[in-house]
Amino acid sequence: LEDPAFEFTDDARQWVDRGTCLTFNLLKYIVPGKLNRGLSVIDSYKLLKEGKDLTEDEVFLASALGWCIEWLQAYFLVLDDIMDNSHTRRGQPCWFRVEKVGMIAVNDGVLLRNHIPRILKKHFRAKPYYVDLLDLFNEVEFQTASGQMIDLITTLEGEKDLSKYKLSVHRRIVQYKTAYYSFYIPVACALLMAGENLDNHVLVKNVLIEMGVYFQVQDDYLDCFGAPEVIGKIGTDIEDFKCSWLVVQALERVNEEQKKVLYENYGKVDPACVAKVKALYNDLNLQGVFEEYESNSYNKLISSIEEHPSKPVQAVLKSFLGKIYKRQK
Amino acid sequence: LEDPAFEFTDDARQWVDRGTCLTFNLLKYIVPGKLNRGLSVIDSYKLLKEGKDLTEDEVFLASALGWCIEWLQAYFLVLDDIMDNSHTRRGQPCWFRVEKVGMIAVNDGVLLRNHIPRILKKHFRAKPYYVDLLDLFNEVEFQTASGQMIDLITTLEGEKDLSKYKLSVHRRIVQYKTAYYSFYIPVACALLMAGENLDNHVLVKNVLIEMGVYFQVQDDYLDCFGAPEVIGKIGTDIEDFKCSWLVVQALERVNEEQKKVLYENYGKVDPACVAKVKALYNDLNLQGVFEEYESNSYNKLISSIEEHPSKPVQAVLKSFLGKIYKRQK
Ligand SMILES: [Mg+2]
Ligand SMILES: [Mg+2]
Ligand SMILES: [Mg+2]
Ligand SMILES: [Mg+2]
Ligand SMILES: [Mg+2]
Ligand SMILES: [Mg+2]
Repeated sequence: LEDPAFEFTDDARQWVDRGTCLTFNLLKYIVPGKLNRGLSVIDSYKLLKEGKDLTEDEVFLASALGWCIEWLQAYFLVLDDIMDNSHTRRGQPCWFRVEKVGMIAVNDGVLLRNHIPRILKKHFRAKPYYVDLLDLFNEVEFQTASGQMIDLITTLEGEKDLSKYKLSVHRRIVQYKTAYYSFYIPVACALLMAGENLDNHVLVKNVLIEMGVYFQVQDDYLDCFGAPEVIGKIGTDIEDFKCSWLVVQALERVNEEQKKVLYENYGKVDPACVAKVKALYNDLNLQGVFEEYESNSYNKLISSIEEHPSKPVQAVLKSFLGKIYKRQK
Repeated sequence: LEDPAFEFTDDARQWVDRGTCLTFNLLKYIVPGKLNRGLSVIDSYKLLKEGKDLTEDEVFLASALGWCIEWLQAYFLVLDDIMDNSHTRRGQPCWFRVEKVGMIAVNDGVLLRNHIPRILKKHFRAKPYYVDLLDLFNEVEFQTASGQMIDLITTLEGEKDLSKYKLSVHRRIVQYKTAYYSFYIPVACALLMAGENLDNHVLVKNVLIEMGVYFQVQDDYLDCFGAPEVIGKIGTDIEDFKCSWLVVQALERVNEEQKKVLYENYGKVDPACVAKVKALYNDLNLQGVFEEYESNSYNKLISSIEEHPSKPVQAVLKSFLGKIYKRQK
């Protein structure tokens, strides 16, 4: 928090401390159970180094990049909760709902984001890949914000329209909103640290995007079919009229009568409506559809990975895939 | 709007077009009468080139940087209106108040900001000063967001407390919230284009910050004492409990009785209260205090500028100062 670009007063520091605390909290309860985006920079870098011991400096730098990714996520989560008018984030009230915060949370979100260039400048300014790091974080921020945009405009309040929910739409939302910042950027950071040029790693990028999509499909599946005591929350995608992979698959399989049931019951809070949707999902055997999707995805991902000429890169990608394949939470 | 990082669908493009239109509108009615931050990059660059004709390419690049500054401002204005719960921006409803937009405006603001790195990458990636441009925009964004933070926490709704309003607080808010992005960044962009190292231009930076502060003091003064038909709006700083330069000066000059009047009437919408505050400003001769401040600032700025070893740089700074000195709007 020391930065020559801005002198803090006590008041300001108090505010920031309060914010930072919350952010640490946010991170603490967002990250576990998920992929732990931050740590995966170190993990990936280790694998790229093929088991050679990392120097203290390398560990420090990889952690710094991990933190940048966490700040990026915190920034998007704070703003996302405002836009979704959410109430809680893993059991705690959303930041904008905390007393006295309100819409100031918008600026707090922006300040979280600003940690990224400050960390990069402080620790990477002299590295040959400094400019590539800046470009990378800028690109991924743009992609994530673009994903948010398509998500927000397809689920516009007051225009509940199931006919928009197609597989291609679902894929685009997921790819831009989640996959780049959750899957691509940690590995891209590790590659840059290892001296690689990202232009030579289109295959890696594509595989990671596919993994991100697969991860989100699992998320959508578990929201309905996962055990609440295992995933740690009760899914509400049906109530929330989400463009979930399940409803998209259902829409591709319904007959006229079932379609009517779906249109009449999707997006309602009434538990009877939710139950009807779930019954329909069962009638359409969406669990089976998912299992088939899961094993297909896995096989395709493995064969794409094995096309890669570098064994260490393969190891990074397989390690990622291993962490999420058949996950129950 | 063409970018390989994101493929637009028709829906998304429609949304962006709608947003961009508004942004152009925003800019159109924000910029005139003010400093025209965008154009000042070209103006400054011309002066640095000492009247040599600019090539078409130089004009293009300077304009591109001007646009980056305009996007930066648009981003901050869209978010600022949300946080201030404002109603209109130069006669039009604020973006977040437009039908169907609402809190999606947060993400739209973020997308506006993302134009900056995209423009920079597209047109400056190969320039030796590319990384300095990225650093500059990042630093100024951080400073502006920090200024917003101190502004928001000193004017926290529900904690109306005049005793916090000191000259040092006013100065800090203004310096960070306005001066860097309005005064410093256009000249800094022109210097980078001219091949200069910004570390060698601390004097320039300091002079521009001082000018930014002076500009905001004028703004505060005109809000109360300017002619509404000239400035194009009716000031409401008194009603809004703003940390204006005028109230800060008043607080430094009041006796016990006058202090009571100020505490009882500042920040109320009732025209009778506003009138009492204005009467007090007159009793304290704040017009005279301002005139003295104005000529002092001018003299100090001129002598700082004349300390600068380079005539072209002096010309840039004097041109800026000439545009704002004794302005009536
Ligand atoms: Mg959300
Ligand atoms: Mg959302
Ligand atoms: Mg989910
Ligand atoms: Mg405002
Ligand atoms: Mg404001
Ligand atoms: Mg004003």
